[in-house]
Amino acid sequence: MNRSSSSQTRPRPQSARSSSFTPSLRRRNTSASLQDPADDAEAAQEAHVEDIIHEEIAEIKRYEDFTTIDWVQDAAREQLRRKARRKERAGFWQREGRIGWRGRIAEAYDAGQAWIVVTLVGAAIGLNAAFLNIVTEWLSDVKLGYCETAFYLNENFCCWGAENGCPEWKRWSGFWPLNYLLYILFAALFSLTAAVLVKSFAPYAAGSGISEIKCIIAGFVMKGFLGAWTLVIKSIGLPLAIASGLSIGKEGPSVHYAVCTGNVISRFFDKYRRNAAKTREILSASAAAGVGVAFGSPIGGVLFSLEEMSNYFPLKTMWRSYFCALVATAVLAAMNPFRTGQLVMFQVKYDRSWHFFEILFYLIIGVFGGLYGAFVIKWNLRVQAFRKKYLAKYAIIESVVLAVLTAAICYPNMFLRIDMTESMEILFLECEGGHDYDELCDVQNRWHMIFSLAIATIIRTLLVIVSYGCKVPAGIFVPSMAIGASFGRMVGIFVQHIHESFPDSKFFAACEPDVPCITPGTYAFLGAAAALSGIMHITVSVVVIMFELTGALTYILPTMIVVGITKAVGERFGHGGIADRAIWFNGYPFLDNKEEHAFGVPVSQVMASNVVSLPATGLELRALERIMNKNQYQGYPIVEDSSSKTLVGYIGRTELRYAIDRAKRDQMAPAHAQCFFTPSGAGQDSRTPSASMPATSFDTMSATSAQLRVDLSKFIDPTPLTVHPRIPLETVMELFKKMGPRAILIEYRGRLTGLVTVKDCLKYQFKVEANENPQQNGSERTQELIWGIMRQIAGWIDDKLNVVRRKLGIGGQDIRLLSPTSQGSEQLQDRSRGGAEGSRDNDDDDGPLELELEDRGRTAGR
Amino acid sequence: MNRSSSSQTRPRPQSARSSSFTPSLRRRNTSASLQDPADDAEAAQEAHVEDIIHEEIAEIKRYEDFTTIDWVQDAAREQLRRKARRKERAGFWQREGRIGWRGRIAEAYDAGQAWIVVTLVGAAIGLNAAFLNIVTEWLSDVKLGYCETAFYLNENFCCWGAENGCPEWKRWSGFWPLNYLLYILFAALFSLTAAVLVKSFAPYAAGSGISEIKCIIAGFVMKGFLGAWTLVIKSIGLPLAIASGLSIGKEGPSVHYAVCTGNVISRFFDKYRRNAAKTREILSASAAAGVGVAFGSPIGGVLFSLEEMSNYFPLKTMWRSYFCALVATAVLAAMNPFRTGQLVMFQVKYDRSWHFFEILFYLIIGVFGGLYGAFVIKWNLRVQAFRKKYLAKYAIIESVVLAVLTAAICYPNMFLRIDMTESMEILFLECEGGHDYDELCDVQNRWHMIFSLAIATIIRTLLVIVSYGCKVPAGIFVPSMAIGASFGRMVGIFVQHIHESFPDSKFFAACEPDVPCITPGTYAFLGAAAALSGIMHITVSVVVIMFELTGALTYILPTMIVVGITKAVGERFGHGGIADRAIWFNGYPFLDNKEEHAFGVPVSQVMASNVVSLPATGLELRALERIMNKNQYQGYPIVEDSSSKTLVGYIGRTELRYAIDRAKRDQMAPAHAQCFFTPSGAGQDSRTPSASMPATSFDTMSATSAQLRVDLSKFIDPTPLTVHPRIPLETVMELFKKMGPRAILIEYRGRLTGLVTVKDCLKYQFKVEANENPQQNGSERTQELIWGIMRQIAGWIDDKLNVVRRKLGIGGQDIRLLSPTSQGSEQLQDRSRGGAEGSRDNDDDDGPLELELEDRGRTAGR
Repeated sequence: MNRSSSSQTRPRPQSARSSSFTPSLRRRNTSASLQDPADDAEAAQEAHVEDIIHEEIAEIKRYEDFTTIDWVQDAAREQLRRKARRKERAGFWQREGRIGWRGRIAEAYDAGQAWIVVTLVGAAIGLNAAFLNIVTEWLSDVKLGYCETAFYLNENFCCWGAENGCPEWKRWSGFWPLNYLLYILFAALFSLTAAVLVKSFAPYAAGSGISEIKCIIAGFVMKGFLGAWTLVIKSIGLPLAIASGLSIGKEGPSVHYAVCTGNVISRFFDKYRRNAAKTREILSASAAAGVGVAFGSPIGGVLFSLEEMSNYFPLKTMWRSYFCALVATAVLAAMNPFRTGQLVMFQVKYDRSWHFFEILFYLIIGVFGGLYGAFVIKWNLRVQAFRKKYLAKYAIIESVVLAVLTAAICYPNMFLRIDMTESMEILFLECEGGHDYDELCDVQNRWHMIFSLAIATIIRTLLVIVSYGCKVPAGIFVPSMAIGASFGRMVGIFVQHIHESFPDSKFFAACEPDVPCITPGTYAFLGAAAALSGIMHITVSVVVIMFELTGALTYILPTMIVVGITKAVGERFGHGGIADRAIWFNGYPFLDNKEEHAFGVPVSQVMASNVVSLPATGLELRALERIMNKNQYQGYPIVEDSSSKTLVGYIGRTELRYAIDRAKRDQMAPAHAQCFFTPSGAGQDSRTPSASMPATSFDTMSATSAQLRVDLSKFIDPTPLTVHPRIPLETVMELFKKMGPRAILIEYRGRLTGLVTVKDCLKYQFKVEANENPQQNGSERTQELIWGIMRQIAGWIDDKLNVVRRKLGIGGQDIRLLSPTSQGSEQLQDRSRGGAEGSRDNDDDDGPLELELEDRGRTAGR
Repeated sequence: MNRSSSSQTRPRPQSARSSSFTPSLRRRNTSASLQDPADDAEAAQEAHVEDIIHEEIAEIKRYEDFTTIDWVQDAAREQLRRKARRKERAGFWQREGRIGWRGRIAEAYDAGQAWIVVTLVGAAIGLNAAFLNIVTEWLSDVKLGYCETAFYLNENFCCWGAENGCPEWKRWSGFWPLNYLLYILFAALFSLTAAVLVKSFAPYAAGSGISEIKCIIAGFVMKGFLGAWTLVIKSIGLPLAIASGLSIGKEGPSVHYAVCTGNVISRFFDKYRRNAAKTREILSASAAAGVGVAFGSPIGGVLFSLEEMSNYFPLKTMWRSYFCALVATAVLAAMNPFRTGQLVMFQVKYDRSWHFFEILFYLIIGVFGGLYGAFVIKWNLRVQAFRKKYLAKYAIIESVVLAVLTAAICYPNMFLRIDMTESMEILFLECEGGHDYDELCDVQNRWHMIFSLAIATIIRTLLVIVSYGCKVPAGIFVPSMAIGASFGRMVGIFVQHIHESFPDSKFFAACEPDVPCITPGTYAFLGAAAALSGIMHITVSVVVIMFELTGALTYILPTMIVVGITKAVGERFGHGGIADRAIWFNGYPFLDNKEEHAFGVPVSQVMASNVVSLPATGLELRALERIMNKNQYQGYPIVEDSSSKTLVGYIGRTELRYAIDRAKRDQMAPAHAQCFFTPSGAGQDSRTPSASMPATSFDTMSATSAQLRVDLSKFIDPTPLTVHPRIPLETVMELFKKMGPRAILIEYRGRLTGLVTVKDCLKYQFKVEANENPQQNGSERTQELIWGIMRQIAGWIDDKLNVVRRKLGIGGQDIRLLSPTSQGSEQLQDRSRGGAEGSRDNDDDDGPLELELEDRGRTAGR
């Protein structure tokens, strides 16, 4: 029996430790490098067993839902593993006499695994992006017509090389109302397919995914969120959703499928399967690649990953992200999906530079960006709350209705009719050089254009508010940019008009006479930057992304100014961008890096002070199991005994469960066996440094009563992070943010006095915030009102449809869009998915915070 | 007496705390918000006194040289201050009945102080940069000629608007050898002036300053390094040094003067004067602005600050940096020093895109970048070691000799003759469009050009190695880029030649026939990026900087590829860029973020285990002072009593010194007065929770024996960070890196068992590294050999000069370039400047590590 032999060899190095405290510690830890070869082999054996144990535990943890990673422990384990590896390798070489080529290769493989993974992930993301681009374009074009020569070609490829007109590309019919109807039908069909796919196969593939990924990268575990199914469904659903014409973008979902790719591929590699913290590096890198391919902006992707996705971004991760984004973009460039040789869908060049007086108008655009962000975040969260409460069951109907509505509303407006990317491209262009779309640059048409653009801005904003968050893959980047572009162009045309009306005004003195001075396209460009920054609350990445999108180098200062103003305005109105607010709305345990608090209280006011702790010695197995079943905490501090509460260590629930199972299985431990958490039984770590115990007495004891003693010492963390009870809460929160432990123990003079988790901190934070901002009611009633109206409309449609059905003589049940009793029933299901799962009433740090979920849903818009 | 009244009011809230432990803690901390108004006023009074104390201590700390900041304490204090402020303000409003406009303004000022400072700093940096640019251009041109109409104009401005030729700009004479001589003389004069200024007024203004600023931003204090004198001298010396033609750049010094500006300006503001940690945010922002104005690349600056300068970069700092760089660049753009409307000295546009087959050649350039970096770092460090040992006394002569040598050597080569920036501009250009400098694009001249460029690459590399680090303001960015550009152009011309020789080869199939396919200018561009990345080991910022410099958007992928390869090659050869190596070389206490270690030892093996600690009660004042004088540590743990060593808190040396002085001054405390470190005397914190003491007895006691009792409790940190002795060293290093405490105490079951500082960690790390890489000797002898040769040359020159002097009949002493006995004498002085200062033998974390300074100097080149 492997297990018992190792437990017998253990005491040897420890029996030497009986004189004084500090030297014994040193010996214990240096002994590894000083002991003789025989010991070495035993140690290797033991290390191997421990390795297996750690791997098995890591495997279990990977499949635990709604838990968080303990970064501190994870890092410590990885270091141990690396050290063991190095030693093992050194031993191998000693035996071989020289460094063999196999050793070299193994070493290189171990060191280079990260690069292999990153390369593979990058390549896969690039390929997927190329596929997505091609499919999206084809689906978008299919709504309008088809290619006669080959149905699978989109308009561009169908007409490749054609100079004037393109006879191969046919509209569906010559009669426009029929075309319009087909257009709407296709839209409905696409969104239906996407929603059904999402609902049936991968519910996590809905929406943007950025908020959840932020939490996952910070250490939260959401089983299946980054799984293969999510990847597949997101990759298929995204082109459908975009082609359906909904006011949604592809960037958030791109990040999501990229991160899924990273997760799926990294699982095939040893190093990442066993180390969740290391996997997070790959996920950060994948996120960078996702944005990189979505915008054709690799550096922008890296910065996005840095600014928005990762709460802690060491330089090593930056370098991985850089590489991953590079590979992905290079693969995408090599695939060349647009056949333009460009990474991006459009590239603009401006001939003119800007003038200092224009800063005044840039101010307007910047303020707009900030207000737009605040407005959309506020109302979108209200819509989300409404959706969660009433529409959870009708996800598919909702998506289809939205697609139909969008198609019907957008058709009359020239800027809404076309694809958002295309409309941005048109709006960004200069008037000079023959780029005139539908008389946009026409002097006579100016007021008409301003009006059209204003309408487009307003309608698109409303559509974004209701569409973002519906149950198809959906991002918010491109719609925001399109809105910003139409607003910016509007301002630009207006400024151009003023200039041309008063060309000799002092204000315009910087303009040269008789040549165009104002470039409305640049205003559109800046508007797009402002809106993007306003909605996401990011700055540097927006500037770089805009810059990489268009190459408008001369406009870097204006872009920075506009984004700066947007940021300042946005900060005034809210705490963080839409992703952060969504995290808050969903109650994920995420400590926001961007926020700073001054609570001015010690941690003792926040900690849980009556902690369930386990005595280090003498606890019976059944008692232990009873405690575990009764208190579903994620971990238990271990104390010397219940009265003195001297802290000895900490054990995670998973480790404890695993250890007990193992003891029962391998050791046949009976229920009355005694559990020991200290390394070698009763008298070892519990003695005070002066009162030591003869080591021999223990050796015999362990041999005779092996079955009745369960040694759990190797499963505990003997050095959990501890703090003083009077340490400021802010310092503890910094520790959580920067070091990432699962729990911090509060120790006062060696005694355990409490335990604090991220969740405790967040609870306190919510409480303080709630006190500071008294809640408003009333939105509840509005919600019910809207729900009533929707039900009436649905009923009316039901009636009409049933009339039609009967007239056509189709049998079967009555059609019912909304079931008669709906409210509340679905809510529970939704909560169990997004909230605490099943029976676990974990008061520990894990699982979304349930606290005041309703409350926050109700006041989401404050 | 303010002090004694506050000490008498103190016990009241505390006398309530006698029942059980945890509740009392809570009460103590919530009492602030619950107590009645009278208490409130007292508390405010007390808070005010504490505020003054903290401010005075902060003021003292600002002037302590070679110490480090305790970020944890600093942050905690700032939070307390903010809370106090908020309460004070709330009280004010309650009294006023409404929020007065004064209150509003005060609040807005407090909140906006950071923005005001950043704006001022940015504007100042922008103005300074404009001034520097103008002066540098003028000085550079003065070497060649002068403007007839106005001597203070440079060639560009003198000839402003002139179409053909420019009669106003005169060369010094028509005879070229005379011009050449004048050129060299001017170079010598400029470098002489710069070196004299540096030596006389601000020794810290020498060199680049990036390494030191890294350490300062990480929390190290170097008095005067960021002072006003350094700012002035660096600003004056930099144009002189650059105009002298030395192979040095302006970017490092730009960062330095920018950070100086930030430091000098922020001192005028309350918030920053008292909080060293907050000042670091401004310094990071200033560094970004410095790079931003140097390269005309604001985003590049932000990323540089992120990637290279700051070891921890929260998003708030990023946002400050963004704003600061924006303001600085906008001011620079408004000043428009080049009168081109551009921020940068050159902007390039490439008409052609790249082909995939070119990646092969990009590989060569990338590898070159890595090798260049490794080579220059290695040899420059050797030169630095040599300089430190032998040349410290001859800084001025060295600079002049270097300038003369550089001028003399560079003249014959067409690429070295001109300014580095100018040469880069020429090398970056396409051949098409009439940009032909000196037949660079001529087909006949190709081999000649390749040869010229190779020579330029080699000579410039050697010059950089000897010049970087000499005692004038000097950076390494631009020289590296110039070297890379000449190498890249060489490769480009070579590739172009191959292509034109074998136009029909399969390899070049992607080229269109009969039009130019290869653009050698792009190779130069990529070469510059590679060399910059190779020397500094930065990636993302290089890509963005190159990008902002030239706007070559299509070349973003090639740039990323080249920089990626460079980084990979560089990593293979060394640990970090030249700035990191210089930190290592100088032995500053800086934990590198980029490096990861797996020591696999517990902290107990590294900690200092026999720590000098102070008993919490009953220590006499004179005993305390004796301990302080005997052990020059930066701080002392406080224990309950010397035998039990139960940890109570930690007090910094500065605080202790201040507290003692204050007690002596205000309280007339005699030498036999007893010091108490626990809040309210003997029995308060030292009691175990069960054994409490009647609160009344204490009140009387404190009143009767006020003079004999010195209460130091408010100066201690009652909650220092503590860890378990068995916690892995890596975790402790992470704590240092991320949380930034000055010292971490090692506590085992409430007992103090040790203390660990950054310095202890670094010492251990050096030891491990030294074991892993056994040192090579021999460079010692080479150094002596070189020194001997230099002395011989100097002697020969002395002789000749003296002969001339005598012939001319000038009296006085013999000229002596190098004094006869020189070695070693200056070394001490140098060490005392860069090393431990004066009598302090601080074993604590502060001051550059002296350990093995020689050893590392000797093996700098490994």
